[in-house]
Amino acid sequence: MNNSNKNEESSKEKTHSDDQEEGNNHKESHNHVHDKTHYEKEQKHMARTTSLDNHPDIEGYDFEREFDFQEFMRSYSTTGFQGTELFKGIEITNMMIEDNATIFLSMTGNAISSGLREIVAYLVKNKKIHVIITSASGIEEDVIKSLNKFKLGDFDVQGRPLFEMGVGRIGNIFVPNDRYLYFEKFMTPFFDKMLKKEKELMRPISPSEFIRELGLIMDDEQSVLYWAAKNNIPIYCPGIMDGAMGDLIYFYKQQHPDFYIDVTNDQTNLVNFVLQQERCGALVLGGGISKHYSLNAQIFREGFDYAVYLTTATEYDGSDSGGNQEEAKTWAKVKINAPTAKVRCDFTITFPLLVAASFCKDKIKRVK
Amino acid sequence: MNNSNKNEESSKEKTHSDDQEEGNNHKESHNHVHDKTHYEKEQKHMARTTSLDNHPDIEGYDFEREFDFQEFMRSYSTTGFQGTELFKGIEITNMMIEDNATIFLSMTGNAISSGLREIVAYLVKNKKIHVIITSASGIEEDVIKSLNKFKLGDFDVQGRPLFEMGVGRIGNIFVPNDRYLYFEKFMTPFFDKMLKKEKELMRPISPSEFIRELGLIMDDEQSVLYWAAKNNIPIYCPGIMDGAMGDLIYFYKQQHPDFYIDVTNDQTNLVNFVLQQERCGALVLGGGISKHYSLNAQIFREGFDYAVYLTTATEYDGSDSGGNQEEAKTWAKVKINAPTAKVRCDFTITFPLLVAASFCKDKIKRVK
Amino acid sequence: MNNSNKNEESSKEKTHSDDQEEGNNHKESHNHVHDKTHYEKEQKHMARTTSLDNHPDIEGYDFEREFDFQEFMRSYSTTGFQGTELFKGIEITNMMIEDNATIFLSMTGNAISSGLREIVAYLVKNKKIHVIITSASGIEEDVIKSLNKFKLGDFDVQGRPLFEMGVGRIGNIFVPNDRYLYFEKFMTPFFDKMLKKEKELMRPISPSEFIRELGLIMDDEQSVLYWAAKNNIPIYCPGIMDGAMGDLIYFYKQQHPDFYIDVTNDQTNLVNFVLQQERCGALVLGGGISKHYSLNAQIFREGFDYAVYLTTATEYDGSDSGGNQEEAKTWAKVKINAPTAKVRCDFTITFPLLVAASFCKDKIKRVK
Amino acid sequence: MNNSNKNEESSKEKTHSDDQEEGNNHKESHNHVHDKTHYEKEQKHMARTTSLDNHPDIEGYDFEREFDFQEFMRSYSTTGFQGTELFKGIEITNMMIEDNATIFLSMTGNAISSGLREIVAYLVKNKKIHVIITSASGIEEDVIKSLNKFKLGDFDVQGRPLFEMGVGRIGNIFVPNDRYLYFEKFMTPFFDKMLKKEKELMRPISPSEFIRELGLIMDDEQSVLYWAAKNNIPIYCPGIMDGAMGDLIYFYKQQHPDFYIDVTNDQTNLVNFVLQQERCGALVLGGGISKHYSLNAQIFREGFDYAVYLTTATEYDGSDSGGNQEEAKTWAKVKINAPTAKVRCDFTITFPLLVAASFCKDKIKRVK
Repeated sequence: MNNSNKNEESSKEKTHSDDQEEGNNHKESHNHVHDKTHYEKEQKHMARTTSLDNHPDIEGYDFEREFDFQEFMRSYSTTGFQGTELFKGIEITNMMIEDNATIFLSMTGNAISSGLREIVAYLVKNKKIHVIITSASGIEEDVIKSLNKFKLGDFDVQGRPLFEMGVGRIGNIFVPNDRYLYFEKFMTPFFDKMLKKEKELMRPISPSEFIRELGLIMDDEQSVLYWAAKNNIPIYCPGIMDGAMGDLIYFYKQQHPDFYIDVTNDQTNLVNFVLQQERCGALVLGGGISKHYSLNAQIFREGFDYAVYLTTATEYDGSDSGGNQEEAKTWAKVKINAPTAKVRCDFTITFPLLVAASFCKDKIKRVK
Repeated sequence: MNNSNKNEESSKEKTHSDDQEEGNNHKESHNHVHDKTHYEKEQKHMARTTSLDNHPDIEGYDFEREFDFQEFMRSYSTTGFQGTELFKGIEITNMMIEDNATIFLSMTGNAISSGLREIVAYLVKNKKIHVIITSASGIEEDVIKSLNKFKLGDFDVQGRPLFEMGVGRIGNIFVPNDRYLYFEKFMTPFFDKMLKKEKELMRPISPSEFIRELGLIMDDEQSVLYWAAKNNIPIYCPGIMDGAMGDLIYFYKQQHPDFYIDVTNDQTNLVNFVLQQERCGALVLGGGISKHYSLNAQIFREGFDYAVYLTTATEYDGSDSGGNQEEAKTWAKVKINAPTAKVRCDFTITFPLLVAASFCKDKIKRVK
Repeated sequence: MNNSNKNEESSKEKTHSDDQEEGNNHKESHNHVHDKTHYEKEQKHMARTTSLDNHPDIEGYDFEREFDFQEFMRSYSTTGFQGTELFKGIEITNMMIEDNATIFLSMTGNAISSGLREIVAYLVKNKKIHVIITSASGIEEDVIKSLNKFKLGDFDVQGRPLFEMGVGRIGNIFVPNDRYLYFEKFMTPFFDKMLKKEKELMRPISPSEFIRELGLIMDDEQSVLYWAAKNNIPIYCPGIMDGAMGDLIYFYKQQHPDFYIDVTNDQTNLVNFVLQQERCGALVLGGGISKHYSLNAQIFREGFDYAVYLTTATEYDGSDSGGNQEEAKTWAKVKINAPTAKVRCDFTITFPLLVAASFCKDKIKRVK
Repeated sequence: MNNSNKNEESSKEKTHSDDQEEGNNHKESHNHVHDKTHYEKEQKHMARTTSLDNHPDIEGYDFEREFDFQEFMRSYSTTGFQGTELFKGIEITNMMIEDNATIFLSMTGNAISSGLREIVAYLVKNKKIHVIITSASGIEEDVIKSLNKFKLGDFDVQGRPLFEMGVGRIGNIFVPNDRYLYFEKFMTPFFDKMLKKEKELMRPISPSEFIRELGLIMDDEQSVLYWAAKNNIPIYCPGIMDGAMGDLIYFYKQQHPDFYIDVTNDQTNLVNFVLQQERCGALVLGGGISKHYSLNAQIFREGFDYAVYLTTATEYDGSDSGGNQEEAKTWAKVKINAPTAKVRCDFTITFPLLVAASFCKDKIKRVK
């Protein structure tokens, strides 16, 4: 059973096999049904097995050697299951980078609730991604976190004790409610400014304009909005009213009913931008509106050229959140020949690894 | 082991138990460690077991009798696992109905892609629900389906063959692309009308106004928008640009750049409405913006009084889509004492059952 | 937009479409890039759309009519997503019944923990299924429930309070620990009997023999084991030691180290049985050993002829629990042409529906 | 909004807040209902918010610095969601190692199908884990892989083409069927040896004995069985008949009906071993029998002292596979105070990271 002489062995095996088949034929006389089945099965297997020599061997990381992060990450390629899918996601991201693709990062707001905020801020600061699409909480929580931190908590705490403590829960993240007061105080003068701007423009502003202006008044190097404004990276948020920002606008409109946010111009802005890009790559964290809005705009140029999804949502319920790239291809949201990976895993595990092994791979010291 | 004399038996058991403990003591001399463990375990169990007499017995449906749908549905209450959770969802919906609660139906657009469209249309036609919140595809597909049907397909078809046939896939539903042409032709004159309306109002219209106007020109009794317009049931769609409607608006704005859709007034409309309701109940199909927008507005009145979620999304990734009601309670989106159920299952299975056993239970003939 | 004259409409549409294309050509002079894209897209869609006339329309249940359970269940077929998959599962089960297939019911033990126990007992009593494969808890909990009921509880109770109350939790089912004492008292004399039987047979007994003997001494018409023994329906449990039964055997062997359970003879029994069946159908509730043991035995006859899975497990992690029938077909566990359905949903919701609409459909009174 | 003077700021905020409340009181006269709600909400929030100063801040990895794997892994602790849970899993594993706990590795067979086989072999070779519990495929595939490699494939290939090529699929891993012929040839003489051994012992052998003997004749340093035999690390497989091994035993028993495998003695062996351990730690990869068999044996010593689950299974269906540690604590399978982590993710992603950051952390060169 030593691997080195496997080939000889397998030719030998064939001879043995013939012998055994005779043996089986003999047995057959005693016990017709079973041995025939066995014999036939064996014959068929031998005859029809394809060797798949051109497929890589399944093989995991060898921990005997000194640990080398790059090799470690490469070992995922031949680990199988979602390990392999993670590696494909990294490989495709590296293709986007090498081909100078325009990279669209979609993320549900909870990416910003989590420690991924710092990683996204890094990518925006260093212009490694080029467009962001997110949901309302992705905007407001970036601002709030610049005012005061979120806290590590627990998944399993019931509603009552936290409600009574004045602490909101996002999964296992705790958000003391006073954050929303600071947020209100920060936003109120900003709304005045936006209303003034609308009067000047003689039209309602769009979410991406609103977000850019917000980024310009921020002063926190850990903020995604701050760097996006500095680096002219657009942030789209088609559902901007869906959260605390919307609540504040509700209050603001009590006195200023002529304040509006228009969602049509951003469609023009995004589609026109998309039409000018040579190659487009999708990095999609989670589902919902931030995923679909990014994919939908690509119909105008027959689809993304690369698409990586990091998600926990499944295909079987017909939701767009869980829809795979084969579904997106039927709608020309992803190009028919585009390389794709759908990594089924909470993105707080996979996205840091993906960023390390793609955007930041030059920062990794190799073990000689 | 006959069930009828279980009580006597269990008192007898206790006597036997004492005997056996003595037996164990005897054994103990031979094999200290193991029997001590066993003995101690037994003693502790006997001492500390709580009988839970006030908890219902787990018991499934008895198919020996003639089938009675109402009894069948009631049997879910004592079936355990998600069967029990489904029954709780039905029970809470019945409480909403009996208490004359204002019922907010949130649904991801794929509810409308599916056969749930007819069920929702029934509920709206008969004024059994009072507000709808959905995503862009929930609006556009209701219109498109009135122009031409969607088709039953397969989950496992790859992207290329369908793309080449001009057929889009939504899970296992197939949508021939010509539907989108009919949709464009239907919408273009409507956009002119909306632009004219904006000029009259001297302000951009909101998604709910836009959707209501759209419902008024529809002429299909299977349409949700048709009945909602007729019955003055508001439909909120904060992310209305996220789909084919947005694409058409992109084209329309090439010639009419002064057409806008404002998303702030709907916040005013929804919150003001919410503040006037005595009791509010949430029926949430799926996650995303249609779930959160409904829950978020309830913060203004300290939360829904009842909340039923039908979903496939899980808590563990911190997304709002999967967030349970205990999380919502920390944010005052659901009242601390509100009855809640989260039924983990694709809603195409559970929602028809829930509607049958709550809104339509009077239509069910009882077996005598 | 009236549905009745859709066909005429769509031919009209085509004429309009030509007009509009001219319009687009006109527009094109102003804004080359965008309109060209739009125009081309439209052209392509028109040219290549396949009408799919032979596919059923997506359409949900019509609640306007008096409720009819059979029609209601049939409406799942055109509801889409898992609703359609559930209907397929029912339809395939009905095929098994009509074709007199030998039906193998696999279930994880928690089916017996739940109210499905009564439904399975009904199926066994009425000889509607022919073989059962389950895990250890599926055996021991059937016995325990005949001694004393399980109780309805809650998912979210933490470990400590229940531990201190002496109550075990299975999802949202509570099991007061005294049940395990009654179980021990019931089993101990039975082990003596089995040991005696082994001495007579001069070989260790197999799990299926052990389970059959156990069924013969039970006296509860709600028990699966009771009816299986009465009706000579074999119950296989290849992992019988994995639970409280194994714990009791551990204690029993302190005094009787010569008591054995052999797992090889059941392979012989099952495979020989399988080889004699003309048509075999799989009903698989959940995953794990009870799923795989059933599928694996079918390799000897090149696979099940029908296969319905009711499961919450997904394909993406490479576990056999989540493996779909396409994977099973590569191993000849399911025949290449076998009709299959994989209904993604907790089986406590789907199995009662499936049983009602297949095995028990004659018990359903039709509404005229 | 500069972070550096947040504390001062927040005390200032409070003063501002008072001001604004007055402002709100003023507004209130105009618009009673809404502002009252807003005002009250604010008041309550201020009053009741708990600052949670002792909770860590949510903060992600800082990619600006040179990449340091140890710091990178530590950053998961404050990333939130499953990122944090992964870190907890690593931390608890490190506690097991530091406390010299006896470590029980449970894994479903697909861990061995995947590249985790090499990682498990490393752990066994270096005596870093002390007991293995797995399913039948975990045994047979370790042997088969020593005969010939598995190949990287694809999830989405349908059954027919692979069946016709004679290739079995396990998720995205392809197994040419000839492997099973080599396996048969390897096993047949071994069965003779085992039968002879049974005759000598005058009792049937147990799965762990069978597996140990098998490991002793293997000659492959990548094999788990090889190292386990060499290092006297027991491998338990209570469901050993459930797979290709069972198929071969079926054939073998045609000629040798007196060959048996007894599953009761392993219970004795495992429980007696468990009772002698001072501290026990569970590493559980996946669910099913390999998870439960390990947990169940711990009831005899009132539960594991540490428990880490890496799994994709969820709690809501009441299966033991998805059961969390709070459920296990009610059964005394995990100690009430035991530190626990349940990392929801395919283990092919998480287990390599966990091993790197715990068992192999000394192999990682630090960046100065």
